[in-house]
Amino acid sequence: MDNTRNPRIVLAARPDGRPKTSDFRLEYTPIPEPVDGQVLLENLYLSLDPYMRWRMSAAKSYAEPVGIGEVMVGGTVARIKYSRHADWHEGDCVLAYAGWQRFALSDGQDLRRLDPNIAPLTTALGVLGMPGFTAYAGLLNIGKPKPGDTVVVAAASGAVGSVVGQIARLHGARAVGIAGGVDKCAFVKDDLGFDAVIDHRAPDFAEQLAKACPHGIDVYFENVAGPVWDAVRPLLNNFARVPVCGLIAHYNDGALQEAACDRLPATMHDILAKSLTVRGFIQTEFVDQQQDTFLQEAAQWIAEGKLKWREDIVDGLAQAPEAFIGLLEGRNFGKLIVRLSPH
Amino acid sequence: MDNTRNPRIVLAARPDGRPKTSDFRLEYTPIPEPVDGQVLLENLYLSLDPYMRWRMSAAKSYAEPVGIGEVMVGGTVARIKYSRHADWHEGDCVLAYAGWQRFALSDGQDLRRLDPNIAPLTTALGVLGMPGFTAYAGLLNIGKPKPGDTVVVAAASGAVGSVVGQIARLHGARAVGIAGGVDKCAFVKDDLGFDAVIDHRAPDFAEQLAKACPHGIDVYFENVAGPVWDAVRPLLNNFARVPVCGLIAHYNDGALQEAACDRLPATMHDILAKSLTVRGFIQTEFVDQQQDTFLQEAAQWIAEGKLKWREDIVDGLAQAPEAFIGLLEGRNFGKLIVRLSPH
Repeated sequence: MDNTRNPRIVLAARPDGRPKTSDFRLEYTPIPEPVDGQVLLENLYLSLDPYMRWRMSAAKSYAEPVGIGEVMVGGTVARIKYSRHADWHEGDCVLAYAGWQRFALSDGQDLRRLDPNIAPLTTALGVLGMPGFTAYAGLLNIGKPKPGDTVVVAAASGAVGSVVGQIARLHGARAVGIAGGVDKCAFVKDDLGFDAVIDHRAPDFAEQLAKACPHGIDVYFENVAGPVWDAVRPLLNNFARVPVCGLIAHYNDGALQEAACDRLPATMHDILAKSLTVRGFIQTEFVDQQQDTFLQEAAQWIAEGKLKWREDIVDGLAQAPEAFIGLLEGRNFGKLIVRLSPH
Repeated sequence: MDNTRNPRIVLAARPDGRPKTSDFRLEYTPIPEPVDGQVLLENLYLSLDPYMRWRMSAAKSYAEPVGIGEVMVGGTVARIKYSRHADWHEGDCVLAYAGWQRFALSDGQDLRRLDPNIAPLTTALGVLGMPGFTAYAGLLNIGKPKPGDTVVVAAASGAVGSVVGQIARLHGARAVGIAGGVDKCAFVKDDLGFDAVIDHRAPDFAEQLAKACPHGIDVYFENVAGPVWDAVRPLLNNFARVPVCGLIAHYNDGALQEAACDRLPATMHDILAKSLTVRGFIQTEFVDQQQDTFLQEAAQWIAEGKLKWREDIVDGLAQAPEAFIGLLEGRNFGKLIVRLSPH
């Protein structure tokens, strides 16, 4: 470990479709020096999340794209290595947005203090972090599950989906998860306690989903799109709610899809015929109003054993690109995190 | 006029795509006789509305399909010809749902008394009826226009679109209409007072729409779908609302659209990236809560000259099939109504 240099991963090229490891570049820069009012952060853990694929593209989405040669963005758990800021002290553990690198400066504005006594630090990137709050805010504000409702979520073993199903159950709804492979399905059913789980790789996936939802679907938390949507759509009940949180099946698509058929008219038909609500959201919309309540409620659920999670931890910054590519293909199992240093 | 027979139009065959006149059949039955608790209605005006195309198909939508050989459904303005019901008297004018025929029975449950002093009777089928309330409920509950917002609606000279734009303006929003042809556009701009209007037949329609919406679109009231949606979508602002009221461009489609490209991923992308709300609705959802308020507000607006309308009246029940086919192609100009008898 070189203590004088800052290893970082920058965007080397904009991917055309599926990202390749050559779209990223590991490089070393001098460790930056804080001025008055700044702190030097040492990132301990880096969160890898699907939204990062959007930032690699030039198209404007809800946030600016990462520039070529710029450090990839990302949430991190960091320790304050050196402080020239009155409110922050060396050794403090914080949630930061310090990117794919070992060291970074901050003026403190974007930091949240972490208490390792409440839960392991890494939970600030998952169940108690942006993914957990995404699940909470989208499910409760848009999905609005009522007792007895059927709530369906894909990527159910993942950072967001796992929380969606568990909170749905805490609100009295029935949670049906969709996951890929025997191990993930077993985890969703046995460890997370979903009422049912379907393997989307099964050849009769759509039939199994229909059987698992005998009273239809009241809330579909959309984070994958593609064939899962096609299986879910006919099962949606009148007045069903569809929070649209992610579309991972399409993140590597080009702008327009060549296809044998246009699936938009059928979706619009059902939106009209069933009075569906389809609502996209980014969790930032709800942060000011609801994040504090979420953190309190979620900490309580964790303390009571009612909210569980699983992490998939990869060692070393150099592994981040390959791990991120795997995330887009569902190769991770649980919240994907890169450990940047032993500690 | 034969006073002993009831002329009626039944569904002769389920259309495959565009309806043909041979999908309908004019026939004559005896005039039905009311029993105690019933009235005999004489329909004066029949409303023709796009939703009727759905009822002609076997597919279940939000209502049961019309059976082969059954009378086509539809709202009517009727006069009570003969009453055996204590609450209704001969000569009363009512709004009914008595279908494509001259005479019908009713137990009074589905009737609404009409006062010809408030507005012409035919308005009960248009601006003061289901189309007007559809515009009101969808725009205010889902579209939620704020002062300064840009509200776009297609079929802007029609029964629903004309009311959407006018109510948007009454709520302080900017109304941009889309219509087909010079005459309709002139009516929308000059008579209805929309802020701008675009002819969807113009080769540079999408460019004109963008110019007419320099601050983007906050509410798109969807009643046509197809190419209009493709032009609207890129202009939608973050957090825009899309009440989905109709999809007339697709009503004659089959189940799945053969196409060179799948338009669903691009729409879902925008729903997510812009936090859009896309919400289907049928006006019946809001009737119990809001119809009385609507009728009061709309009558007031009409009295003050703030809410205008145009009717396209066709004479004779036998003309209904051809007029309805024209409605699906935008050949009508204003609320399409069939006059069933001179009076």
